[in-house]
Amino acid sequence: MSGADGGPGAGARGPLAILCGGGAFPLEVAAEARRAGREPFLVGVVGATDSAIEAYPHVWVRMGEVGKLFAALKGRAIAEMVIIGAMARPEFSDLRLDWGAVKRAAGLAQLFRRGDNGLLAGLAAIIEREGVSVVGAHEIAPRLLAPTGPIGARAASPEDEGDIALGARLLAALSAFDAGQGAVVALGRVLAIEAAEGTDVMLARLAEMRANGRLRFTGPAGVFIKAPKRGQDLRLDMPAIGPMTIEAAAKAQLRGVAVAPGLVLILERERCAREADAAGLFVAGFAHARSVG
Amino acid sequence: MSGADGGPGAGARGPLAILCGGGAFPLEVAAEARRAGREPFLVGVVGATDSAIEAYPHVWVRMGEVGKLFAALKGRAIAEMVIIGAMARPEFSDLRLDWGAVKRAAGLAQLFRRGDNGLLAGLAAIIEREGVSVVGAHEIAPRLLAPTGPIGARAASPEDEGDIALGARLLAALSAFDAGQGAVVALGRVLAIEAAEGTDVMLARLAEMRANGRLRFTGPAGVFIKAPKRGQDLRLDMPAIGPMTIEAAAKAQLRGVAVAPGLVLILERERCAREADAAGLFVAGFAHARSVG
Repeated sequence: MSGADGGPGAGARGPLAILCGGGAFPLEVAAEARRAGREPFLVGVVGATDSAIEAYPHVWVRMGEVGKLFAALKGRAIAEMVIIGAMARPEFSDLRLDWGAVKRAAGLAQLFRRGDNGLLAGLAAIIEREGVSVVGAHEIAPRLLAPTGPIGARAASPEDEGDIALGARLLAALSAFDAGQGAVVALGRVLAIEAAEGTDVMLARLAEMRANGRLRFTGPAGVFIKAPKRGQDLRLDMPAIGPMTIEAAAKAQLRGVAVAPGLVLILERERCAREADAAGLFVAGFAHARSVG
Repeated sequence: MSGADGGPGAGARGPLAILCGGGAFPLEVAAEARRAGREPFLVGVVGATDSAIEAYPHVWVRMGEVGKLFAALKGRAIAEMVIIGAMARPEFSDLRLDWGAVKRAAGLAQLFRRGDNGLLAGLAAIIEREGVSVVGAHEIAPRLLAPTGPIGARAASPEDEGDIALGARLLAALSAFDAGQGAVVALGRVLAIEAAEGTDVMLARLAEMRANGRLRFTGPAGVFIKAPKRGQDLRLDMPAIGPMTIEAAAKAQLRGVAVAPGLVLILERERCAREADAAGLFVAGFAHARSVG
């Protein structure tokens, strides 16, 4: 992570493809790439990607149109690609395979016997076999990474710091099970642990437990802690928070959100800071030994 | 755990008080106590306990009527008590303190600054200071404990066994954080981890993820694994499953339920077995090194 004008991957290295999932992250990465002097070429996935990508040079593909994807990249001499944004795991039978996909079909079918991480890693391997390097959004757009310390006006209290440390240790312990990117801890008590449901569903559950009296606190309680799993390939699956996270944390009546600095993306940071301030939450990168890379 | 006619706590040792939370467990424990030759005396908590306890000698107390509770016990020369059944954690301000409670008020108020485990442990200590031993339901009613192996017609497959072993290791790792009595694992993937929301909410979440397509499996998938935390005081907080668990597991389209044998209570075992068979689920105690006592 460097400061304003470019980190490790931000040099001028030719055009950059961005394979875009849902949400606004792909556009932020595109803006950062252009800012660093690289021309972004956005690949939209029909049914997943926001049409706002059309503000940039782009192509639309259906899931499974692998041949069309590679043809578009090669026509533009693109040698690097970022994969970013929310994407539902497809079933193999959902894919619209084109001829370029059929040529690679044996490899594709195998992927679908793996878990999510294996599927993404296999997809990256297929892309790299075509001569296109898969790089992480954090390499292209280091300014989107969480800093150490607060991004808004509030900071964690000493009690919050204790909860953050406990949550970080909990997530580290869960890494061995390829589980757990998030947890909520209040005064030493583990209130929720994220698994396949995702962050939003976990935070909604806390809001419900506060509302129905299953959790009884006076005032805000608990910190949401988020960090990548140890060994997680950040090129393919980078944890992220954004305004929706802040809103969900506020509804759950949390005290704040703490993320691993340099290892979690923050979407729309200024808006997050503003909305966190308005809700009385802290949002901060916590002190954290970097154990993944 | 012994067989039919009495384990360690089942000798005739005078009348036994049962402090009854919600649900049918207190009645099963009362029946087992009577079967072992001990006269049960049930203490119902207004607003929490089912009125079916009135089939036995009983007294009703409000939360906080500590003096009334001890007077009832002493009038009957009761020297042992079981605490069993679901009970929502009260706020100190909800208590209806009587004179017997006020005499012990300093100790009571302190309890409410502790976590759930601390609160129960403190309650047990107060009871024991009055000369009444707190014993576990598993000591009084060992027939209610999960056996090793299946209780119904189906058994775990080798793949299920792999998921059970992973889940058991996961729960053991979470014990260090005083969290995690349950998890769901499918083919090596951790789908859900239980924290403050409890088993029912966790299983309902899985049913929802199956229904909304966030989890995409063909047919039943995943095993619910349940075990006490290491160091958990089984006298006060014994994990339990029952027909509601089986129903929730079936709705979540799981393959089965695996619990730590000798360490988890099974409510209405015959009904559980019958309903699991009907739903195509296995319910079994898994091979497990006993690490708590």
